[in-house]
Amino acid sequence: MNAEIIAVGSELLLGQITNTNARFISAQLSELGINVYYHTVVGDNPQRLEEVVETAKQRADLIIFSGGLGPTKDDLTKETIARLVGRKLVTDEEAMQSIEAFFAKRNRLMTENNRKQALIIEGSDVLVNRHGMAPGMLLEDGTHTYMLLPGPPNELEPMFQFEAKPLLAAKLNNEECVIVSHVMRFYGIGESELEERVQHILEAQTNPTIAPLASAGEVTLRITAKAATLTEANRLNAEKERELQALVGQYQYGVNDDTIVSKTVAMLSKHNLKIAAAESLTAGMFQAELADISGVGTVLVGGVVVYNEKMKEQQLGISRDFIEAHTVVSAEVAREMAKAVQRKFGTEIGIGLTGAAGPMPHGNSAPGTVFVGIAINDDVETYELHLQGQRNSNRIRTVKFACHYLMRQLEKNGYTRA
Amino acid sequence: MNAEIIAVGSELLLGQITNTNARFISAQLSELGINVYYHTVVGDNPQRLEEVVETAKQRADLIIFSGGLGPTKDDLTKETIARLVGRKLVTDEEAMQSIEAFFAKRNRLMTENNRKQALIIEGSDVLVNRHGMAPGMLLEDGTHTYMLLPGPPNELEPMFQFEAKPLLAAKLNNEECVIVSHVMRFYGIGESELEERVQHILEAQTNPTIAPLASAGEVTLRITAKAATLTEANRLNAEKERELQALVGQYQYGVNDDTIVSKTVAMLSKHNLKIAAAESLTAGMFQAELADISGVGTVLVGGVVVYNEKMKEQQLGISRDFIEAHTVVSAEVAREMAKAVQRKFGTEIGIGLTGAAGPMPHGNSAPGTVFVGIAINDDVETYELHLQGQRNSNRIRTVKFACHYLMRQLEKNGYTRA
Repeated sequence: MNAEIIAVGSELLLGQITNTNARFISAQLSELGINVYYHTVVGDNPQRLEEVVETAKQRADLIIFSGGLGPTKDDLTKETIARLVGRKLVTDEEAMQSIEAFFAKRNRLMTENNRKQALIIEGSDVLVNRHGMAPGMLLEDGTHTYMLLPGPPNELEPMFQFEAKPLLAAKLNNEECVIVSHVMRFYGIGESELEERVQHILEAQTNPTIAPLASAGEVTLRITAKAATLTEANRLNAEKERELQALVGQYQYGVNDDTIVSKTVAMLSKHNLKIAAAESLTAGMFQAELADISGVGTVLVGGVVVYNEKMKEQQLGISRDFIEAHTVVSAEVAREMAKAVQRKFGTEIGIGLTGAAGPMPHGNSAPGTVFVGIAINDDVETYELHLQGQRNSNRIRTVKFACHYLMRQLEKNGYTRA
Repeated sequence: MNAEIIAVGSELLLGQITNTNARFISAQLSELGINVYYHTVVGDNPQRLEEVVETAKQRADLIIFSGGLGPTKDDLTKETIARLVGRKLVTDEEAMQSIEAFFAKRNRLMTENNRKQALIIEGSDVLVNRHGMAPGMLLEDGTHTYMLLPGPPNELEPMFQFEAKPLLAAKLNNEECVIVSHVMRFYGIGESELEERVQHILEAQTNPTIAPLASAGEVTLRITAKAATLTEANRLNAEKERELQALVGQYQYGVNDDTIVSKTVAMLSKHNLKIAAAESLTAGMFQAELADISGVGTVLVGGVVVYNEKMKEQQLGISRDFIEAHTVVSAEVAREMAKAVQRKFGTEIGIGLTGAAGPMPHGNSAPGTVFVGIAINDDVETYELHLQGQRNSNRIRTVKFACHYLMRQLEKNGYTRA
């Protein structure tokens, strides 16, 4: 089964929002072994939408739409698809009740155009929307399968996962072949260098295929096997992973959906270690990223944001003389921040982050100069970074590098990875 | 001039990364008055890439590619375009020097396939890459203009902005018509209710057109005028904005690229007010979002992350008895957190954020229950939220609502918006 994902919405073409739905749906389809060969974005224009659907019908069996199910006049997806498959729109009673309940719960005014959202294409399976008003739909016209999903990600994601995915999986039960991807994730090595080290494996690839990719300071190798069964595909992927690990395993931090932050939290959790952070340039981002991992409560105790020099003195007790002697963007200050927050919060681990995020230099420090201090019990180390990105990307990289160094330093101290 | 944006990369179709480049380029083209009618994503497959380019040639004058300029074997964009326009690839000496310098600066091993990145399509204008190795290209074949950009956003964005955009703007000087969009941003009103209030204006729209959009708790109205000159288009947009403001102006917080966070920072900065925050469920995200705004240093002093109850006691002096009496997710604790951090950091404003981010309830508090405490000098208020999203979206919404309430409470205290 081949799929194409069509996002409908002029706001995407004007660059007001990003098409995160295509990424989400693609990852989900990949898990099901459904190939995605194209994403398309088209505006709120019924004629152009019809044209891209005609093109998609020539190259895909399953066509998934996101967006254009809203209450306003420019939301035209279901009207257009209904016309193309020659069916009527009918009111779905369950959807109407759910819309009425939605408004009752929020004490908000229900308007006439909200009722339009309860209309579905006749003969579709309704995909219940638990986070908004527009129901989704799944329908077939003999040659193609069409899935209509709402645009807002907080509605689309749970709808796909809990309503649509089981229906698709059931359809696939009769297929003869599955395609399964497995992603190896690396930190601390460049894309070219990684590729050179595994070159003979890349050149000999047939099944599984192997694709390298660099993004946001990380490198991944995507291994994709095609086989008669899921078990066999997984076995082929695992075999290829072991071959690659023999060559570049020391740089691998995780697989698939792992992030360097989630692996850090898992490692701390495994050894029951508590962490606190003192943040300057990242201003809370290190802790906020850790807290994005559900269950972090046993690991993250808290910390301080000390955005100006006076607060480094008042909140952490790093004296003005010390800061002046070393400058605020220095290994020495990062070290003292790590030790101070470790002591103040009574944790095994303290992290200190100071630097010039950019775009301006900070005193004599060029933008992108960052110092990371890491205290693990009595072992205190500092690390220096020279990042080349823009303000926000430098802050995110700092958080990732801090996790990378923390895991390495934990290993040095005898703790094993999760 | 009509444009289509084609992103090349199997990693996009597998859902490993999001196509943020299409959003960025679209927003930039919209500023230039260039219409974008389609985005397409295609994998690292030369035949399918050729097919989508043929389709794009029928519906666009300017075709912009992102990705596929990397050093690895599956990076095929420039080879494919060179073949389609019937030109050779030649080494660009300047690009080669810049690649060599890039490796020298980072002390990293330069490999043979990095040299491939200095190849450009003969006769193109080179777009210098200041943040990576692959140069971009701009070329014309008599009927179409092609622009090739690297995939990593930290390379693509500055390249487009500083290298490609001026070249495109020069090309456009002879055009007869510009299209300019202006976005009005609202908070605290639903999409349907907003649309009902301005319905007669929406129904009568011709030029400018008006399109409503809801996302991430906000609603926007995009006003788009077509005119002979930029000045005339801007005048039409401003006139329509005033008409809309007469009806729903009280909900408007900003325009265009404004965010509720950037407007909050601007308002604080205007009145020279300093802010500190005590964060529980958001774990630093409120401060990190503020710090994403360049120049926040005069406003944000710092704050604390108190992720567990013991830290609320130790770091903020909120007694265990008080927390037990009211529960940790309560208006009372949010109020004390705001007052404590205001006092501890010596700022005019203190923010306290406590709640159950989800997916699990926190004690008796359902997931999504959040309390925001805001202290502005002696005026301390609390606000209660019941959010419906997933863990991370609830945390982001909390940050935005805190900004929304802060601006309203500042107004109540006599401070005007920036």
